[in-house]
Amino acid sequence: MSLQFALELARSAGEIIKEGYFKQKVISQKCSIADLVTETDTKVENFVQKKISEQFPTHEFIGEESVSSGAKISFTDSPTWIIDPVDGTSNFVHRFPFCCISIAYAEKKKVALAVVYNPILDEMYHAELGKGAFLNGAKLSVSDAQNLSSSILCSEWGSQRDATMDTKVRNMHKAVLASRGIRSIGSAALSCCMVARGSVESYFEYGIHCWDVAAGELIVREAGGVSASPDGSPFDLMSRSVLVSCCRQVLDETSACIERIPFDRE
Amino acid sequence: MSLQFALELARSAGEIIKEGYFKQKVISQKCSIADLVTETDTKVENFVQKKISEQFPTHEFIGEESVSSGAKISFTDSPTWIIDPVDGTSNFVHRFPFCCISIAYAEKKKVALAVVYNPILDEMYHAELGKGAFLNGAKLSVSDAQNLSSSILCSEWGSQRDATMDTKVRNMHKAVLASRGIRSIGSAALSCCMVARGSVESYFEYGIHCWDVAAGELIVREAGGVSASPDGSPFDLMSRSVLVSCCRQVLDETSACIERIPFDRE
Repeated sequence: MSLQFALELARSAGEIIKEGYFKQKVISQKCSIADLVTETDTKVENFVQKKISEQFPTHEFIGEESVSSGAKISFTDSPTWIIDPVDGTSNFVHRFPFCCISIAYAEKKKVALAVVYNPILDEMYHAELGKGAFLNGAKLSVSDAQNLSSSILCSEWGSQRDATMDTKVRNMHKAVLASRGIRSIGSAALSCCMVARGSVESYFEYGIHCWDVAAGELIVREAGGVSASPDGSPFDLMSRSVLVSCCRQVLDETSACIERIPFDRE
Repeated sequence: MSLQFALELARSAGEIIKEGYFKQKVISQKCSIADLVTETDTKVENFVQKKISEQFPTHEFIGEESVSSGAKISFTDSPTWIIDPVDGTSNFVHRFPFCCISIAYAEKKKVALAVVYNPILDEMYHAELGKGAFLNGAKLSVSDAQNLSSSILCSEWGSQRDATMDTKVRNMHKAVLASRGIRSIGSAALSCCMVARGSVESYFEYGIHCWDVAAGELIVREAGGVSASPDGSPFDLMSRSVLVSCCRQVLDETSACIERIPFDRE
């Protein structure tokens, strides 16, 4: 698959995001006061879907806003693009500078190409399976920390405002006591990239969707990191959960802090 | 007091921070696994203290590392500089791009001049009493949100790893349920600046020191925001706590989520 196509697509989509970022916005609420959508989310997704279908008319497409509008998630062995048009929509609305487009391309259910672009900070992350991960062209490596006690984590409160929050709070509490701290930047894709660049050692979250981490998870592995489900079992893109870390030891120690939160697979 | 002097001081100190940021670091632990100090903290503080004492030999000086080394905090009516050489030391150590120098100048116990500089993102915030707040020369305004339910907050887990964490967890829990979310960026000074620039609507924290927020609190007020103690009573720089918001309504609603955590005044 063409890396060049995906990079150009991300950059063009980034222009639309950046334009919307500085403007007055029309905001709609989806499932909770923390679950927002803007005209820009839809505009970017339509743009990206059109470009992909022009270039690759036979490919499948999974996008956050298409699914929100009722499209079924169909993740098959066919070539499939998995897109979050604006990851970190609340950040986008508030002009908090961590929002991005996330583009993943999968074949036989394996992500082969990943691009995450934050147009506000002009940070372009990409990875191809087996070829390493890069930020603005410079090779990325995860942190060399060996233990959770010398690690910083990323995790998020997410957009659910229901009983799952009780468990999230317990997980954060346990994780912060065992580590140097937790950062919450409001974007799953960029939290993965923070692990990939070595700025934090682990990122975990329950409640995310496949489009939030499809690209970020490959970027972490291509930067030398590891991924799993939060309970330590193999990573499952459709499980509504993620744990990525700089190494297996830190992953296992992070996992030991995390109580399972039940979400239906998507 | 000379704004120009403070801006130049911050920029020179920023050069030292940026140089250290990309290098291998010698790290020491202070009070907990989350309370770190590096050679750069000391180097920057010595540099800043020397420059100030050369320029203003009669002025008082309160700096994080001097106090850590045993200096007593003496906050009097005399002209006093309050300095955090590296706010966000854990971020600095992990190359998480939110660290800064914080410089405040006070007369008669009132901060009159504030500079916060993040040399990694090259973001220079400043404010003078009655003259507005600026980011890289552009005037800042707080968010126009009127309610906590349409707000994003900043708060931090801090460096204590003791029983105060139980209350912090309850505060975060209550605040996140009432808002669009909580961000944690690992720097008190830059969290204040996030309120000043309108990227978040409130920031609260217990356990901070005067040098963490002396500059940031003025920057928020000069951007049109308000400050208080987390219980809603008047802001007290020496109280080990802070609450800053875009407006009184959001401040009061944030305050209603926060249970008091007892810290001795400094």
